[in-house]
Amino acid sequence: MRPRLFTPGPTQISDEVVHAMAQNMVHHRSSQFKEFFAETSDMLRKFFKTNYDVLTLTSSGSGGMEGAVINFLSRGDKVITIEGGKFGQRWGEIARAYGLEVIPVEIVWGESISPEEFKTVLMQHKDAKAVMFTHSETSTGTAFDIQGIAKVVRENSDAITIIDGVTSVGVLPFFMDEWDLDVVVAGSQKGAMIPPGLAFVAVSERAWQRADSSDLPKYYFNFKKARKSLHGQTTPFTPATMLLIGLNESLKTFLAKGHEHYWQKYAALSYAMRNGLTVAGLEIFSKNPSHALTAVKVPEGVDGQKFVKILRDNYNVTVAGGQEFLKGKIFRVSHMGHYDQLDMMSFVTAMELAFRDIGWALEPGIAAHNVQKFYMEFTEKTAGQG
Amino acid sequence: MRPRLFTPGPTQISDEVVHAMAQNMVHHRSSQFKEFFAETSDMLRKFFKTNYDVLTLTSSGSGGMEGAVINFLSRGDKVITIEGGKFGQRWGEIARAYGLEVIPVEIVWGESISPEEFKTVLMQHKDAKAVMFTHSETSTGTAFDIQGIAKVVRENSDAITIIDGVTSVGVLPFFMDEWDLDVVVAGSQKGAMIPPGLAFVAVSERAWQRADSSDLPKYYFNFKKARKSLHGQTTPFTPATMLLIGLNESLKTFLAKGHEHYWQKYAALSYAMRNGLTVAGLEIFSKNPSHALTAVKVPEGVDGQKFVKILRDNYNVTVAGGQEFLKGKIFRVSHMGHYDQLDMMSFVTAMELAFRDIGWALEPGIAAHNVQKFYMEFTEKTAGQG
Repeated sequence: MRPRLFTPGPTQISDEVVHAMAQNMVHHRSSQFKEFFAETSDMLRKFFKTNYDVLTLTSSGSGGMEGAVINFLSRGDKVITIEGGKFGQRWGEIARAYGLEVIPVEIVWGESISPEEFKTVLMQHKDAKAVMFTHSETSTGTAFDIQGIAKVVRENSDAITIIDGVTSVGVLPFFMDEWDLDVVVAGSQKGAMIPPGLAFVAVSERAWQRADSSDLPKYYFNFKKARKSLHGQTTPFTPATMLLIGLNESLKTFLAKGHEHYWQKYAALSYAMRNGLTVAGLEIFSKNPSHALTAVKVPEGVDGQKFVKILRDNYNVTVAGGQEFLKGKIFRVSHMGHYDQLDMMSFVTAMELAFRDIGWALEPGIAAHNVQKFYMEFTEKTAGQG
Repeated sequence: MRPRLFTPGPTQISDEVVHAMAQNMVHHRSSQFKEFFAETSDMLRKFFKTNYDVLTLTSSGSGGMEGAVINFLSRGDKVITIEGGKFGQRWGEIARAYGLEVIPVEIVWGESISPEEFKTVLMQHKDAKAVMFTHSETSTGTAFDIQGIAKVVRENSDAITIIDGVTSVGVLPFFMDEWDLDVVVAGSQKGAMIPPGLAFVAVSERAWQRADSSDLPKYYFNFKKARKSLHGQTTPFTPATMLLIGLNESLKTFLAKGHEHYWQKYAALSYAMRNGLTVAGLEIFSKNPSHALTAVKVPEGVDGQKFVKILRDNYNVTVAGGQEFLKGKIFRVSHMGHYDQLDMMSFVTAMELAFRDIGWALEPGIAAHNVQKFYMEFTEKTAGQG
């Protein structure tokens, strides 16, 4: 069977984007490229639902996360990190690497935290300079109520909010300015639907005001320098030009179809997958699932790593397994990316076959049947809304 | 006329590389990708002429330079930087950003420094922990005798050598291990002939030993973490997968043809350009030219920025202008990249036409004639050597 990629980043990208990038003649200091970059940066603002500047960095999302920390804080600053998975923990790792005082809010992987619960932590640390958290935790497939948490921060402290929006911007309903968020990081290979290699960081005026006093060392991820370049329609260092071309193409399509189209689509795909698989006898890992991806528990007695391998070796389907202590315990299938429901049906069918190969019985077509049933239910229920 | 790119990075890349990258189905944690990454990393070692590990980072070359500083030094360490252009100065900027004590060796732009001259500086700062310098200074088109300078360092101090090989590795004769160099940075859009977005850093055992005691903060550019991942055939963060595919394709061709093929080719193209343009009445900026590119002085009375613009607007030819105080004073044409002498003849002809448009007289064909004459002279002189 032909290769099919269902990992929650890199995700499948469109042929239009692939073709747009297939050129060998781009220079990043020409006046044409400046116009092109300005246009792309303007589309990024719309993508983030913000009027603030959105910086484009040549790095993975983690590089953007590091920049989001080191540009707005100083040595010894206290920060609160909400850690409910591998990416939530990353905020703590970065902060500790730079000598910040970290107050980690540890959450059982797969669970979330309510704004009210978070408020009790915040009130004990009102001197925190920043609160760092995750919108869509990719390691567990869990969504967090960042709107509610940000509101608690705003109403009760002077901390800035620093948010990992890597698998949420362009995927889940997200409003940078309306929700009054300060620093938000996204990555190219997720909701923006291009290959990995770029990170995007949107920064509020409140956060920029903190940048002047920040004493943490920085060079490549110096955001004030990046902002100055952005205002000159360029980047401080040679950017990944080919990816910028893909981004321009991809965002044009995204904005033409509109955020609601994608939010609705991902909601439908994830709703169908979650409910369909549950009826077919599988269990969803997250207590508060993100629409970006679905994390599915591997059934008792099945070797999850072997299952992922069989899926790839026998059916050319690639999903992500579990990370850290979830290795072999879950698999993760992406909805975000250039996918539609027919892709999901391909995935479900390959999944059924792989389970059969590994000796875990599933009546042929039962998962496919249910996933499609719930998809129709969702789309009929929401018809006229999207 | 069709677009032609002659900038010293991004450079022209081959259709084979463009086509190899034009795919939308790559995941970086699969076993196939691990094998692929290991193969690519092994080719990078050959590319650098080293048996040491070569790290691949998703960033511009400057990100690699920052990593080359912050992983092997500690707060307050004294370092010597050789600064003969914009990129030499970058070593000083990075070192100062991290609180190192910088002893800058300032060199007139376009000039070089002999190992003997450098030795007198080194002997006054034998306690320096590192010497940072540039092999091919792209802002001025100047080559430095890094073999000689590294030898002086090795024989007279315990400093490690940290070298910007961005426009030299794969372009100029370069032997990491034979010359006993410690940390060498290269970028994807130069000698490796793929688009920008990756940096490569080769690290000697001597340098790794310093990494353990380094106390400078780091996260995304943590090389010990990157090395550990490399030994597990992967990267610590999602890499720019598409560029890795291009790199694999490009290095296969490079290694099949051999280093000498490219060194000889770039030597021939730059020799011809330098001498041909000189006879035609132009002046070469550098006193010790690099084969990677030629920096040409804009004739008295000609507006260099306008010249570069006309070249692009009227003939679709893109070159780089001068940077900093050289803005409008020089233009820079690349030899490194997927070029041959016929490309150079296209460039020279467009250059003649643009000079004519701007009112600086050049007899039609005179530069082309001379560049070709010197090309033939070079190739006949070296026939049987390459």
